[in-house]
Amino acid sequence: MKIILVGASGTMGTHLSKVFEQEYEIVKVGSKSGDILMDITSTESIEQMFKQVGPFDALISTAGPTHVGPWKTLTYQTFRKGVEGKMMGQINLVLIGQHYINPKGSFTLITGALSHDPQLNFANASAANGAVEGFVRAAAIELENGIRINAVSPTVIEDSPQYFPYFPGDIPVTMKQLEYGFRKSVFGANTGQVIKL
Amino acid sequence: MKIILVGASGTMGTHLSKVFEQEYEIVKVGSKSGDILMDITSTESIEQMFKQVGPFDALISTAGPTHVGPWKTLTYQTFRKGVEGKMMGQINLVLIGQHYINPKGSFTLITGALSHDPQLNFANASAANGAVEGFVRAAAIELENGIRINAVSPTVIEDSPQYFPYFPGDIPVTMKQLEYGFRKSVFGANTGQVIKL
Repeated sequence: MKIILVGASGTMGTHLSKVFEQEYEIVKVGSKSGDILMDITSTESIEQMFKQVGPFDALISTAGPTHVGPWKTLTYQTFRKGVEGKMMGQINLVLIGQHYINPKGSFTLITGALSHDPQLNFANASAANGAVEGFVRAAAIELENGIRINAVSPTVIEDSPQYFPYFPGDIPVTMKQLEYGFRKSVFGANTGQVIKL
Repeated sequence: MKIILVGASGTMGTHLSKVFEQEYEIVKVGSKSGDILMDITSTESIEQMFKQVGPFDALISTAGPTHVGPWKTLTYQTFRKGVEGKMMGQINLVLIGQHYINPKGSFTLITGALSHDPQLNFANASAANGAVEGFVRAAAIELENGIRINAVSPTVIEDSPQYFPYFPGDIPVTMKQLEYGFRKSVFGANTGQVIKL
């Protein structure tokens, strides 16, 4: 089984690649390091990545650039970071990747609790997450050849303690829980689901 | 009370302007007709509209351009219609309009059942709706001076029978129900809510 892991050098990606590469063929894709370099905000770069990888069975994305900061810094310019990154970047992985994925393959994107449980400083992520979740539900009833799509939605994660103060009252999701969320999507049979952790 | 109605010449806007202008001062804003012409995909045009209107008490948006069509026509190019229209257009109305709205004013945006209840041909709207709903929840905890924000989320509406075949099993929302959804947001006290009709 050949799995593309987008965001492989990030906090989530590092953990997922460590555990999944013991069992599967993992193609690590990152903006700065990995088997293949890709700029998720560029459709040309995404297309090039898929051409280079060839047919694959699953794509996991943990790539989520968004603007994080006080509300007054959130303008229509800074808002673009999440629109072109976590939102359109991930949606384009599917719109383009559907032409390269094997039948019965799967896409698993990353969203987050912020879509429904907002926190100060993260409105850009709330919007990007909401968009990806809406897209996942819709794409699930459109994709053919048994191709599935889900989203994994954690709150703040164990290996990102620098974010704990911004998520008061949220019990951090362990890396093991995160891993199992992705396992459920990739190896289960559901589609169109937002897997809340 | 001065209410800006964006999308005033559309199906929803026509009804809302007819009923609300009997009670309030309504500034009709549209892309092709109205008191003020505005291109919702242009931040310059949005800024210009707010400058022309001056201080206001409520903004109602029913403006939702998205790409509607078979999945194979949904590419990263056509997907932009909903991103720049229903999503960023409406989000920019808030990011820019917050600097012009009176204290205790309100923003009411339009989303739709498609964010959680997808239909074939409407994946672009599902994503745009989801983004706006996530943004509404997050903006509600950030906006100051008592400014509120909500979304109204109908399924297919009574006055758009051409869309009925695309929403099998959905009982169309009457124009009266739609109107009361907006009344609840504008004249009620809630914020951060998605008012499902």
